[in-house]
This record gives sequence, structure tokens and C-alpha cells, in this order.
Amino acid sequence: MRSFRVTSRYGDYEVVVGRGAWRRLRTLARRGGGHEARPYTSIFVLTERGLWRRWGRQFRTEAGLKNCGVLYVPPGERSKSLAMVEGMAARLLAVRADRRSLLVAFGGGVVGDLGGFLASTYMRGIDLVQAPTTVVAQVDSAIGGKTGVNVGAMKNLVGTFYPPRLVLADPVVLSSLSPRAFRSGLYEIAKHAILAGDRLFRILENEMESLRPENPKSLGRILAAAAKVKVDVVKRDEREARLRFVLNLGHTFGHALEEATAYRRFTHGEAVGWGLLAVLRLANLLGVLAMGEEARMAELVRRIGPLPSIADLNERRIVELLPQDKKTIGGRIHWVIPERVGKVRIMNDIPVKLAAAAFCEVQASSNSTRMGLGAPTRARA
Amino acid sequence: MRSFRVTSRYGDYEVVVGRGAWRRLRTLARRGGGHEARPYTSIFVLTERGLWRRWGRQFRTEAGLKNCGVLYVPPGERSKSLAMVEGMAARLLAVRADRRSLLVAFGGGVVGDLGGFLASTYMRGIDLVQAPTTVVAQVDSAIGGKTGVNVGAMKNLVGTFYPPRLVLADPVVLSSLSPRAFRSGLYEIAKHAILAGDRLFRILENEMESLRPENPKSLGRILAAAAKVKVDVVKRDEREARLRFVLNLGHTFGHALEEATAYRRFTHGEAVGWGLLAVLRLANLLGVLAMGEEARMAELVRRIGPLPSIADLNERRIVELLPQDKKTIGGRIHWVIPERVGKVRIMNDIPVKLAAAAFCEVQASSNSTRMGLGAPTRARA
Repeated sequence: MRSFRVTSRYGDYEVVVGRGAWRRLRTLARRGGGHEARPYTSIFVLTERGLWRRWGRQFRTEAGLKNCGVLYVPPGERSKSLAMVEGMAARLLAVRADRRSLLVAFGGGVVGDLGGFLASTYMRGIDLVQAPTTVVAQVDSAIGGKTGVNVGAMKNLVGTFYPPRLVLADPVVLSSLSPRAFRSGLYEIAKHAILAGDRLFRILENEMESLRPENPKSLGRILAAAAKVKVDVVKRDEREARLRFVLNLGHTFGHALEEATAYRRFTHGEAVGWGLLAVLRLANLLGVLAMGEEARMAELVRRIGPLPSIADLNERRIVELLPQDKKTIGGRIHWVIPERVGKVRIMNDIPVKLAAAAFCEVQASSNSTRMGLGAPTRARA
Repeated sequence: MRSFRVTSRYGDYEVVVGRGAWRRLRTLARRGGGHEARPYTSIFVLTERGLWRRWGRQFRTEAGLKNCGVLYVPPGERSKSLAMVEGMAARLLAVRADRRSLLVAFGGGVVGDLGGFLASTYMRGIDLVQAPTTVVAQVDSAIGGKTGVNVGAMKNLVGTFYPPRLVLADPVVLSSLSPRAFRSGLYEIAKHAILAGDRLFRILENEMESLRPENPKSLGRILAAAAKVKVDVVKRDEREARLRFVLNLGHTFGHALEEATAYRRFTHGEAVGWGLLAVLRLANLLGVLAMGEEARMAELVRRIGPLPSIADLNERRIVELLPQDKKTIGGRIHWVIPERVGKVRIMNDIPVKLAAAAFCEVQASSNSTRMGLGAPTRARA
């Protein structure tokens, strides 16, 4: 079990990754949070019904929660809405949650983002613990204090920055994920490895195929290393103005792919997987990639497993959807472009034609290699 | 024109009160906000249609806003909803507001609370300027960074702490308020005077009848002094944990009165007016008021003008509604009890029977004095 401290201008908190992480909640629940450190008047868990059925008893036992209320959120992205926030706030009020109550978000990205927003706004902010239950949530979305809900088709259009009191990531829950859901999270780990540098990248290169819930030791070690990448970025730039932006690596294309398929074909991680392949290609076309680096990084991404096809997608449509990314400031697209393992740069003057070409080439090479069976072979002049 | 600096852990800002305050927006709009101080990509005004028709041109001229988008909110408390936040966020997105846009909330409490919440959550926070246009908003609600919307009957159940870049309170707009709306704000000024101490209180005693929009000089001076009371409290305790709580003086009874009449009979200020009279009576029954102080303070409140009747309200119902105040922590009612001009204490162990008795006595004395024509005469043993 590893533990990292996030220092934030809104307050510090601990990220605990590994088997037994949930036990850390005992201390907080006993001691209480905030400057006053009084015990909480009540504790509520926001979760999904199926997930809680499988893990609720174990979580409550390990976390030492004898009396806690449970609020269920229907699974799926549609739950990330202001209407759901309203419904949950009314529920919290009905069960007499007050300013000294604690909310535990036990679930994946939807529960974490919704629960974070709910905790940050209910009575103008109550204490929050994130207990992420998916790979992406454990190494990425539950860390950093971003919360959000969707408005129409626009993801996270409304949200807050709100640090939790604790992030408790126990890999034991990952064993009930579907293989596809589990794999999806590995794309985000690959992204973190590309950002972090050679050490994590090499470990992943050596252990990719053994990264399975059945190998908790190897898995726990890599989850902790990947979570630390996010922790380090967040510590240095909480509000994303500059450094935190690098975490968008692979997400510019990724978001466009999700939008183009109405969020139905790809999991978020899979879209990021394609996004990484496309932006690596783009970096190659731009001539900023060191020799051999594209192949090395793309191979790691492809080894994660097969990705849903992008063969039928039109590159013009994809490129059209790029500017709708809300990271656009003043109408431009800010790209995170990899230079080599451990180094990226931000560029905002890339011709859209080049982006379209990169997408087409990834499309073509994926068709010819029958999707996911090998790295693209074309080398750069 | 007077200017006060609010230092807040989320960022500092200036509160400008007096004729010409709007001009201060020119500098901000030119220089931009935040650490980077880049000019804004766009500026949007959130307001009400009738108000903007009357003042929009003058505001834009003085504030130097050549190009700005305008978003209209329907008047009334019902606009303080998450559904309205969702609609306005979608509108902002449609007109391409981005993270570097500025939102100006030009209106009373509803526009300020809604606009503040919208700005604090749109793309996880964009810059905000409060341009309050009612007495209460100018001396109280626009200062301090509290935002909020209602959920069901529960006022401000969902909200944030979010400091504006500027608060610009120009008394010129008060001339288009109805006499009743104008007077309602004076109850909050009386509350501030009771909290602040003898100086402001004496000025009010001397000038109450001349406090009219037609006397801008006297009005501006008192608005600034009342706004400063709020500024001083906010500076010392931004999150209301302790000191800020005193601003609830008169609001415990006040909220119950508003609820008991479904927010239809009283303006918020009028409910606070009755709330002040009732809590003064309660303080007297508790024996914590210095001799003669109840009469002195109650007289000031009553001189503001006639209040809608409370003769038909049942004291048991009022007392039942008290605990629903969300300031209740762990089920108790925290009262702000005046001891004398300039001094209050917080008490949480007052028998409800005493609160009921205080309410009945105010009710009775108001009937006998035909409402608002004099102070209650009963002295305390």
C-alpha cells in the first residue's frame, strides 16, 4: 500500500493506493475533518446498486462504517446531470445530512464526478471521500479535485474544483470489472507512462500482459505508480492553467471520436487509446518525435488489446469535432504533442489538414494490421 | 464613492460603493483578471429584461462595455434553480463563452446568487463581477462570495463560495425600485447597524426618514457604511463557521415567517424586520438585553415603515418551522441574540416555548399599536 500527499490551495489530502486502502477511512471518520476536527454528524455513501451489492459489505467492514446511509445513482453517463444533483441534494436533505456530514463517492468516474459536485455544492460544501472502483478513476479522475456534470452533449460543462479529504483506491474492486472495462483503464495508464518517463514506461513494457486483477501485486504497484503521475501534476498546477494540461494527451482526438460515435462505440479509455495512436502519428508528421519513439509508444498502446473499429469514421467529421473541445481558448485547439517518452509539448497552431492526415493514416494502418495486432510500420523521413 | 478591499483565501477583491462605481469595470475589462491578467475573450451580462431596459444603456456607457452579450433571467425566486443554471450554461456555450470570459451579474439577489453559482461552475469557474441593483444586494448579498440556488422549498441548498473580481454598487439604480422594495432593504441596514455598533446606529437614528433614493448623498454614505459591516465580517471569517454567523441576526424567525407564508406575503427584508423585532423580544425574555436597548432598537426597525401583518400566524407553526433553518447543526437551533447595539451572542439552548412566547408578544404588541406605529412599550423586569 502506498500513500501520496496532495498539497492544494484548497486543502491537503492523501491518496492511498493498494490493498487495505479503505481502512484509512476509520481514522477520518473517528477524528472528523476540517480545522475543527469534530466527528461527522452522519456519513452517506453515493454509489451504484450493483456495485454496492457486490462490495458494500466488505467496504463497510474495512472502512468501519456501522451506520451509513446509501444513495444509489443509476449507472451510466446520463446520471452526470444537474437534475441528478438536484434529486440527490433533496435526498440528502430528507435524510438530514447537514454541513458536518461526510459523503463517500464509491464508484467509477460517473459516481466520482457527480458525487464530487454534489459534495462541493450541498450546503456550499461538505466533506468528501473518493473511493474509486475503476482503473481510470483510481489512477486519474478521482485525484485532483475536479468535479463535473454534463449539460446536453457537453461533458463536464458545469463543475467545480473541490479537493476530497481522502482518495482510497483499493485494487480488490477491479476484479468485478468486465475484461473490457478493465482494459479500458490501461489506456490511461499508458498515457501516464508516456508523460512520466522511462521508469514507469519500462515496467509497463515488461508487465503489460500480466496486468490483470488476478495479479494483485503487479497491478497494485503499477496503479500506485500511475496514480503518482497524476498526483505530481496536480500538486504543481491545481487549476490546469498550464502543466495540468498535459494530462489531456490523447484526449483531443479521443473526445472527437467519442462525440462522432455519440459516446456509444468506445469506452472513454478506448477513445483515449485511439487518441494516443492518432496524436503519436500527428507528432510524427510534425517532425517533433525522436526516431523510433512512435513505434515504441504505439506498440505499448496496441498491446493493451483490440480496440473497436474506426474504419467507418470520416476524418473531416473528426476534425470538425476537435474545436468543440472545451480546452479551446479563444477558438484555438491546444494540442499535447509527445516528443519522446517523458516529454510532451503544447502546440496551438497545427493545421487541421495535418490532424486529418494523421487520423487517416492511423485508420489505414489499423485496417491493414487488422486492428490491434501490431504497430504501424511506416517510419518517418 | 468608497472602496473596500476584501481579502479572501480564494482571492482578493474590491467592493466599490457610490455614484460612478460602474466605471471601475473599465480597468478590469481592459486589464483582465486572474494571475495572468490577460484581457477577456468575451463579456456577458446576466440580468432581468425590465431592469436592463431601464439601466442597460447607462451601465454599458459607464462600464465601457461596447460588445457584450446579454442573458435574461425571468424575475423572481423561481429562477434560482438548477434547471435555470443548466439553461444558462447551455446559452453561454452556444454564444461561445470560454474559460477566459467574464460574467457580470447585474441585478438583485436572485441574479446575484444565480449568476454567482453559474460563474463558479461554468467550465469549473469563470470570472465574475457583481453589479447589485437592490439595497440588500448592495450592502449584503453581493458581498462575501456566497452563491446558491434553491432545491424544492429549500433556499440555497446548493451553492458555492466564490469570490467575484469586483462588487460595484451604484445607488443610482435604486431610484427605479418600488418604495416597498426600497424600504425592504433598509431592514438589512438596520440589522447591520445593530451588529456594527453605535456610530452607524446613531446615523441611522438621525437620518432614517431621509433615506430615500432622492437623497443620493445621505443614501450613498449609509450604503457604504452598511456594506463595510459586511466586508469586515467576511474578511474575518469567510466560511461562516463562527463570526459570519452573526449576520443571521433576525433571520431565524425571518425564515420561519417566510416559510409559513410560502414566501408570498413578505419580502425577504420585511421578514427580517419582523425577525429582528421577535429576536429582540426573545433577548429581553432571556434577560440578556441591557435596559432600554430593546425599545431603542425596535424603534429604529419600526420607523422604516409599515410591515405586512403577522396577526393571523400561529406561533406553534412558526416555532415548528425554526429547526428547518439549515444553519441548524446536529439538530439544534443556533440563535443570534442581541445584547446591546454592537454586541450579540450565539446561543443554542433556548427553549422553544420562549421563542413562541416572544413571537406572541410581538404579535400582540403589533396589533395593539396598529402595526408599525410605535415601539412595544412593555419593559422587562
